[in-house]
Amino acid sequence: MKIVLLGSGNVATQLGPALKEAGHQILQVWSRSEANAKILANKLGVGTEVIGQLATVNMNADMYLIAVNDKAIREVAEALSLSIGDRLLVHTSGSTDITLFDGLSSTFGVMWPIQTFSKIKSVDFKRIPIAIEGSSVIVTATLRTIAQSLSEKVVEMSAVQRTFFHIAAVFACNFTNHLYYLADQILQDQHLDFDMLRPLILETAEKVQTNRPIGVQTGPAIRGDQHILDKHLALLKDNLIAFELYRKISECIMQSRDHIQSTR
Amino acid sequence: MKIVLLGSGNVATQLGPALKEAGHQILQVWSRSEANAKILANKLGVGTEVIGQLATVNMNADMYLIAVNDKAIREVAEALSLSIGDRLLVHTSGSTDITLFDGLSSTFGVMWPIQTFSKIKSVDFKRIPIAIEGSSVIVTATLRTIAQSLSEKVVEMSAVQRTFFHIAAVFACNFTNHLYYLADQILQDQHLDFDMLRPLILETAEKVQTNRPIGVQTGPAIRGDQHILDKHLALLKDNLIAFELYRKISECIMQSRDHIQSTR
Repeated sequence: MKIVLLGSGNVATQLGPALKEAGHQILQVWSRSEANAKILANKLGVGTEVIGQLATVNMNADMYLIAVNDKAIREVAEALSLSIGDRLLVHTSGSTDITLFDGLSSTFGVMWPIQTFSKIKSVDFKRIPIAIEGSSVIVTATLRTIAQSLSEKVVEMSAVQRTFFHIAAVFACNFTNHLYYLADQILQDQHLDFDMLRPLILETAEKVQTNRPIGVQTGPAIRGDQHILDKHLALLKDNLIAFELYRKISECIMQSRDHIQSTR
Repeated sequence: MKIVLLGSGNVATQLGPALKEAGHQILQVWSRSEANAKILANKLGVGTEVIGQLATVNMNADMYLIAVNDKAIREVAEALSLSIGDRLLVHTSGSTDITLFDGLSSTFGVMWPIQTFSKIKSVDFKRIPIAIEGSSVIVTATLRTIAQSLSEKVVEMSAVQRTFFHIAAVFACNFTNHLYYLADQILQDQHLDFDMLRPLILETAEKVQTNRPIGVQTGPAIRGDQHILDKHLALLKDNLIAFELYRKISECIMQSRDHIQSTR
């Protein structure tokens, strides 16, 4: 497939090379920051052109892949559609409806790689699930073909399912990282090294690779150990955020015990 | 060193074989459940005896290692001390003071492996940090020698530091697992497969193996994307626990933004 890639952020930086490696042609890269577009185009090598203006976009691509901030998708799509007319517009956002493309093209969709990306850390796309949704059966089939060239785990999801999946990802990724951050703060206050906690963090994530989280919950709250909970809360009284989250999440874990016991 | 191991739970089951592999002799295993003690003793092989009564404990060990539930440590130590007199008593708990041994022996301490253990999943002890504290300089040196025979990361921690480390571990391990559990619930409600979320969970933990959490926070809250936050909260209105935690943790992340910006 011939693809024009719009964006040069974390997602575009990982997706572009993966698409090229899967045999697709990245005709052009556009980004609001031309400097960043050039960096990405350099990674993609000969055959990929950098464009500074959306007006100069190549009209012969099979897909226009918009990997920009959620808030900028519509604006980019509008500018694009002035040049390319009725061609396949696809975004990569977990939290954006494809109806956002209404009125700009008759063929559109989403291809959402369910992973947290950074520019510097490469990821193995084969193992990254990709959620797809197309404006028609034909578009969905096209997106499935492209997504399957990247990943072994391609799933069609409705807009509602994708939003709930995004919420689940916020819990499992964004919120989890905030807990790591609070743990880091607590250690720093005691002049203890975060590095000592890293094996535990990794093991906790690895445990649920083969188990359901419900089966591997440990700690004072699930044991109902009120003595330890009270001791910890007393020590957190000078760190209001940590105190409140400790109390709240412990309550939630204790409430989940009935459910856990009934399913064991 | 000649060691008597008290307990047959997750910690004892991992610690026993690791100690043996490091060249120590496990003279005896005792557990409230003699059946479990036998299973563990079988793993430890010839030379390790199962005892059903603490009264029959071998008096010639260099260390009596108590790896039982926090609440049972004192009771086991009391029963032990009737038989062994003034010998080295050590527990493996992150959240228990060593003064718990007061009056039972003049030599005591803690050797806390900072990891979440299960009986079935083996762990590489070399990479598991071990926190130690002894009742005297000599005891601490002994514990350091033993701990270093197991792990490359041995750190002396005071009782207060250990408690704060335990609190940090509750955030980074127990609470994190509860977030995985909530994510799993949200997916199940939408007939979506938790397996799709596993790569994201692992990558989130791997990211902080080389970064500080503060540097890799992503998601709608850190971006201040109120539109997405409101959309997600509206969809969670039938899941009270998830709703409250979503709102609370998002607030905490937004409050952390100033701190994050000031340290970037």
